[in-house]
Amino acid sequence: MNEVIKMVHGDGGTHTQQLIHQLFYKYFNNPLLLQGQDAADFSVEEGRLAFTTDSFVVKPLFFPGGNIGKLAVCGTINDLVVSGAQPRYLSSSFIIEEGFSRQLLEEIVKSMEEVCLESGVNIIAGDTKVVEKGSVDGVFINTSGIGTIIDNYRMKSIEAGDVIIVTGGIGEHGTIIAIELATVLHEFTSFCKLGIHLIEDQIPIKSGVSVVNNLLGLDPLYMACEGRMVIVVKESEAQKILKSIQTIDLGKDARIIGTFVEEQNSTIFMENYFGGKRIVSALEGSMLPRIC
Amino acid sequence: MNEVIKMVHGDGGTHTQQLIHQLFYKYFNNPLLLQGQDAADFSVEEGRLAFTTDSFVVKPLFFPGGNIGKLAVCGTINDLVVSGAQPRYLSSSFIIEEGFSRQLLEEIVKSMEEVCLESGVNIIAGDTKVVEKGSVDGVFINTSGIGTIIDNYRMKSIEAGDVIIVTGGIGEHGTIIAIELATVLHEFTSFCKLGIHLIEDQIPIKSGVSVVNNLLGLDPLYMACEGRMVIVVKESEAQKILKSIQTIDLGKDARIIGTFVEEQNSTIFMENYFGGKRIVSALEGSMLPRIC
Repeated sequence: MNEVIKMVHGDGGTHTQQLIHQLFYKYFNNPLLLQGQDAADFSVEEGRLAFTTDSFVVKPLFFPGGNIGKLAVCGTINDLVVSGAQPRYLSSSFIIEEGFSRQLLEEIVKSMEEVCLESGVNIIAGDTKVVEKGSVDGVFINTSGIGTIIDNYRMKSIEAGDVIIVTGGIGEHGTIIAIELATVLHEFTSFCKLGIHLIEDQIPIKSGVSVVNNLLGLDPLYMACEGRMVIVVKESEAQKILKSIQTIDLGKDARIIGTFVEEQNSTIFMENYFGGKRIVSALEGSMLPRIC
Repeated sequence: MNEVIKMVHGDGGTHTQQLIHQLFYKYFNNPLLLQGQDAADFSVEEGRLAFTTDSFVVKPLFFPGGNIGKLAVCGTINDLVVSGAQPRYLSSSFIIEEGFSRQLLEEIVKSMEEVCLESGVNIIAGDTKVVEKGSVDGVFINTSGIGTIIDNYRMKSIEAGDVIIVTGGIGEHGTIIAIELATVLHEFTSFCKLGIHLIEDQIPIKSGVSVVNNLLGLDPLYMACEGRMVIVVKESEAQKILKSIQTIDLGKDARIIGTFVEEQNSTIFMENYFGGKRIVSALEGSMLPRIC
């Protein structure tokens, strides 16, 4: 039960083959991966594909609600979805520290496959490296992904008057994983050269989150909201889309939080209950470590 | 000139954006990457694609003839080519140790783009992570690649009587990078369930390589031959293909080194000048560290 990963598991010889067959093929069990060639091959129809990559270096490797493997697959699927693509194929590349627990590695791999099954994607290409103890912290995972583009979302096509929907409460994942609302909104404005007018009262923040943030002096706009999606829609469609999102359990707290506006400096400002406005600036340095 | 990479370069905020624009976009300068979205999108025609991934953890990062970046791009292009694909698109994902030299990072990135330009491929997706000092050795790079399959090479379609060509001298890169002839041949036999009959005299080994190996007690069959390709062809075509390879400067030492044979245990044996035979077994443990 105390089996560990050794350097020979990464040397490309018989031990590597054993690890691949006994562990990775056991879970990532699909015919395209099992071709076992230098590259997987798959058929495509004429159209557009999305391609993305992400390396995951999270500490700790296991955290409430998941582990680095689940996060990697979810993160890459997310990058495809928000690009208007249906996720299809992933690669997974492991860099493993010598001495890492084989059992923990299996838990990670198993949880990756669980997300793949839920999402209808397959891991069809992989790589395994083992590095000397101390050369890496436990396990790093890269997942790259290919999806079929079903609609062309383009940040540059955003216009003044378009409405911003967030699909749930923000800041709730702050102590675990971090990509925050402020950075997402700044990505939008840097593309579309518009400003944003946020309505503070409309931003869904659970009271528990507010209390903790007030205690710690953190701003929820700069706190994690992994698992939330920010969607920009035409004003005429906004209510219909909002209601549709709210019918899903995970979307019941969705709200319209603001509007894109003509603004020379692409400023994001937030209006509070009393009509006061403050500027939401871009993140400089991290409030909490970033992991994906 | 002594600029270094800091944790803020990986936090996804303004410093990350600066690094991406000033360094990665400067070299990986193609419209698909410059879309700057969560996933690149590109058009495909109906057909088959190849997809591969590889993480590179080589030490030292710079070595005679190249660096980790050049190796990563070459390695991934190689995996596509040997799968019968024309390499088209790559992703590159960097995990960088805090304090790493910005100038060395630029050299790595620059050499990646040089190989891309030579090979007609584009890096269209990327990711940058920075980890605390000591969490990684300098830089690790993952490259994943997509190619258009132009011919379907299948190891399972190898038949007895097929001839093995190696495109140049073996063992010459042993002290630098290592994937060796023996492992490659064992990959073939495990797929096609045939044995291999190698002719020792025909295997191109430079005299310098032989001398060093004899001194160190290393077997050149288990030494690196990165940059060499092992090709299996029908006997009737072998001479024509060999001559064609020999017209290229890098292929002038190409030789036919053996033949696939019906053999119950898929044994690889090598016949020497005197008719003596020895078994070439699969690699157990590393003679030298593996890096790709």
